[in-house]
Amino acid sequence: MALRKDHGPLEQVIKYLSTLPGLGPRSARRVALYLLEHKMDVLRPLITAMDDAAEHVTSCHICGNLDTLNPCRICADTTRDHNLLCVVASVADVWAIERTGSYKGLYHILGGVVSALDGITPEQLRIPQLIERVTRHDFREIILALSATVDGQTTAHIVQDKLSPFSVPITRLAHGVPVGGELDYLDDGTIVTALRSRARL
Amino acid sequence: MALRKDHGPLEQVIKYLSTLPGLGPRSARRVALYLLEHKMDVLRPLITAMDDAAEHVTSCHICGNLDTLNPCRICADTTRDHNLLCVVASVADVWAIERTGSYKGLYHILGGVVSALDGITPEQLRIPQLIERVTRHDFREIILALSATVDGQTTAHIVQDKLSPFSVPITRLAHGVPVGGELDYLDDGTIVTALRSRARL
Repeated sequence: MALRKDHGPLEQVIKYLSTLPGLGPRSARRVALYLLEHKMDVLRPLITAMDDAAEHVTSCHICGNLDTLNPCRICADTTRDHNLLCVVASVADVWAIERTGSYKGLYHILGGVVSALDGITPEQLRIPQLIERVTRHDFREIILALSATVDGQTTAHIVQDKLSPFSVPITRLAHGVPVGGELDYLDDGTIVTALRSRARL
Repeated sequence: MALRKDHGPLEQVIKYLSTLPGLGPRSARRVALYLLEHKMDVLRPLITAMDDAAEHVTSCHICGNLDTLNPCRICADTTRDHNLLCVVASVADVWAIERTGSYKGLYHILGGVVSALDGITPEQLRIPQLIERVTRHDFREIILALSATVDGQTTAHIVQDKLSPFSVPITRLAHGVPVGGELDYLDDGTIVTALRSRARL
């Protein structure tokens, strides 16, 4: 059999690839074949990069960001505004905000949002670390940059509740029509919110 | 910057992941984060498996299949029918046919199909190796198991043409209604072919 049950290296690669987000058994097989066909220009460099990442990339003990340094480059950057804190769900959200180049404060990564479906409870999030940071340092403002989904907003409420003993002002991202978004394609909730929060010209 | 331009290990992983089929920059970032979050249970074993595959998996010099052995397990299997040859485009096709468990002959992998769009010419396919096999060995039948696409059928015609000096019977896969397929969703070409090749009950 070409695809044996005896866990040959190719089958092992396919097995682990198929556990990755967005990859199923079929796409994992396709990727594995592609890797073997591009052994020198893709597979070998990818192994080296992954090995390097596994060895050197760690979670920043302050904010939870992934970096080769700990504290991470953002937490260690003295040119950033250390009195402004942005609470996000994941590292991907940090990257998304950093790509805009419009934010110069610090981050706190919760490591997810509460989710009844995925069984993620508030206890699994980095909320105690956030409380500790807020206790230790007087932030000027805390921005809750969480998704405008049910889970994201539930998480925002929980975080807001935990932060209520502190006098720090808490803000959230504005809701409204996405830039470039067509009204016709927007859901009713967004239109209602955008109407309510309309701005004077 | 969290996503730096200085080619840190995480950025390298994302760079190589985004070259894989079916993965774009966004899904590559998602996969990279997932790998870092599952360092011990996914990333490390995947590195080991990929390293193992890169080291041990080679292309069979007879049929072109990928295996840790050369000749591959299929070519070396004396219980298989060595007088029956199935010509396929890729290793994935071998796996697809092997999964059915209904074929016990040998394979010949062309390594693709001719494609004007992708610039793949007949010279890039393993056709000379096929001719050599057919010259050396008297096959009872050669099955052209190529896709029913324009490129697949063009390749089939080219292979058929190259094999014409030999007296070996050449067959192709049957065209018709896929098992479980609804007539209403089938293209006209398939319905016409299925009608023409209708079988007596």
